[in-house]
Amino acid sequence: MISRPMIGEAAARIKGHVRVTPMLDSPFLDEIAGRRVLVKAECLQHTGSFKFRGGWNAVSALPGAVRAKGVLAFSSGNHAQGVAAAARATGVPAIIVMPADAPALKIANTKALGAKVVLYDRATENREDVARRVNEDMTLIRPFDDPMVIAGQGTLGLELLEQTKDVCGGPADVLVCCGGGGLTGGVALALEGSDLCARPVEPEGFDDVARSLISGRREVNTRTHGSLCDAILAPGPGKITFPVMRAHCGSGLVVTEAEALRAMALAFNRLKIVVEPGGAVALAAALFHPDEIQGDVVIAVATGGNVDSAVFRLALDQFGGTGQAFP
Amino acid sequence: MISRPMIGEAAARIKGHVRVTPMLDSPFLDEIAGRRVLVKAECLQHTGSFKFRGGWNAVSALPGAVRAKGVLAFSSGNHAQGVAAAARATGVPAIIVMPADAPALKIANTKALGAKVVLYDRATENREDVARRVNEDMTLIRPFDDPMVIAGQGTLGLELLEQTKDVCGGPADVLVCCGGGGLTGGVALALEGSDLCARPVEPEGFDDVARSLISGRREVNTRTHGSLCDAILAPGPGKITFPVMRAHCGSGLVVTEAEALRAMALAFNRLKIVVEPGGAVALAAALFHPDEIQGDVVIAVATGGNVDSAVFRLALDQFGGTGQAFP
Repeated sequence: MISRPMIGEAAARIKGHVRVTPMLDSPFLDEIAGRRVLVKAECLQHTGSFKFRGGWNAVSALPGAVRAKGVLAFSSGNHAQGVAAAARATGVPAIIVMPADAPALKIANTKALGAKVVLYDRATENREDVARRVNEDMTLIRPFDDPMVIAGQGTLGLELLEQTKDVCGGPADVLVCCGGGGLTGGVALALEGSDLCARPVEPEGFDDVARSLISGRREVNTRTHGSLCDAILAPGPGKITFPVMRAHCGSGLVVTEAEALRAMALAFNRLKIVVEPGGAVALAAALFHPDEIQGDVVIAVATGGNVDSAVFRLALDQFGGTGQAFP
Repeated sequence: MISRPMIGEAAARIKGHVRVTPMLDSPFLDEIAGRRVLVKAECLQHTGSFKFRGGWNAVSALPGAVRAKGVLAFSSGNHAQGVAAAARATGVPAIIVMPADAPALKIANTKALGAKVVLYDRATENREDVARRVNEDMTLIRPFDDPMVIAGQGTLGLELLEQTKDVCGGPADVLVCCGGGGLTGGVALALEGSDLCARPVEPEGFDDVARSLISGRREVNTRTHGSLCDAILAPGPGKITFPVMRAHCGSGLVVTEAEALRAMALAFNRLKIVVEPGGAVALAAALFHPDEIQGDVVIAVATGGNVDSAVFRLALDQFGGTGQAFP
């Protein structure tokens, strides 16, 4: 269904279109973590998150006749923008189905990226029905449970191998912010056979993947909202992503929302990057859960930066004022 | 005194030690500017500003015996951290002379980077006297009026040439945030003979370089403080940097402090990078002064990101709340 060679093919497909995002570090972060911390700044990707990788790969790989009919996605967030931007760049019509109560700015951004936005009422409408009503001929691009999307996200893992080859002398954990597991699974597969081991990181209360890796079956969250880490609140691991993660990932880590905000403030202060709460959980684990990590080096993927200024100010208010709140 | 080959030598010296910072862009910024905008995200450099380039080049080029005696710098800001970090990385002792009223966090950061910090009273002491008292044998690394420092900063220009060669089809302006002219002069020299033209950008009330380029002699500012753009408030262009800028730069641009804050908010929203006010004036000029720029593409250097969270929140409060304040 999804294989390692597909990630290599995806890498060839995205080359020149997707940014090779930089690895950043800071002696101040190393001191907090007690080991070297490398941060893959994927928040600097086009559309502000890794979702552009999978979007580009899935859209651009469609056969010409299928592609001409357009693509469809459901999303209120990063996946919407990733697919919309990839569709525009490849000249493909796109419809994004968004809940009517999504933030006005996200709706405006998705429209500005050239997609047609169709709104639906979360309370009274089933979004699959909405999609069929909208356009039966368009190809649905799923947010994570799609081999082409997983392969696209996995290209980040290939970049990591290249970027860390002179840095990591031995085994190292690669901490990945994890929702449905598209990125985590893709990266884990890409790292197969190397010294690097992908491990999912989730926010407290939404640790479905960590629990699933322990129990060996797909556990679900009791809630699907109510966290600032909105980008990674999938109900549970995907049908396709879970077996991949089970075969290739190390155990999961879980951080608090406060730790995610603190990591955001440190990324602001020490790395000069903007990270959203759901994109900061991996860095939070690297910094504040040192006993759960092995090795002299840890790699954290900062998966996205699409955060409202109000939430960003919350992080700065709590942890960025004087520096004194920092460990 | 300073020549183009020295920049090539600097590039060889810094290779592998200084980050090749990424070029970022966003369709939203292009729309505001009415042309393609490329941002050189130098705020992602080690120590959060371009100063690490010149610091590394100047320190590492010292002959062994001289170098062993250590280096000395005066600075309350980015130059302090750039020299301290470069000295530590090359195993050279460093003393940084800082005003006693510099922000506690900047003093702490400079110490944490391994430098000995000597404080002096701005009101009663002359810092040159302080330096002689401190250590006569150490080599003084000047913030901008030093050929090796200028050559180090100029390496950013060589990177630009490489990074934009497939993007700019014709002439393009390179807007550079300008204080004493070390970076602007170095970049201008590096771009000599290419389609790219370096132009200094300064904040209103501190436009000494713009006026000097018009009058043909070194004009000075009437004030040296009282702007949020603290990183670029030199009293006037340097003895060495001015002739270089006069020979190789296009005319200067001047932006308001409000425009700089607005550019910071847009960099937060659209590029996911943290830029300080003095590091945002070039982007502000690219976005809000389109009539003063030629060509289909403009390149803005985001020179640094060392901003207190209080000032950053100010930018978000004024321009990052709802997106509605954006043009």
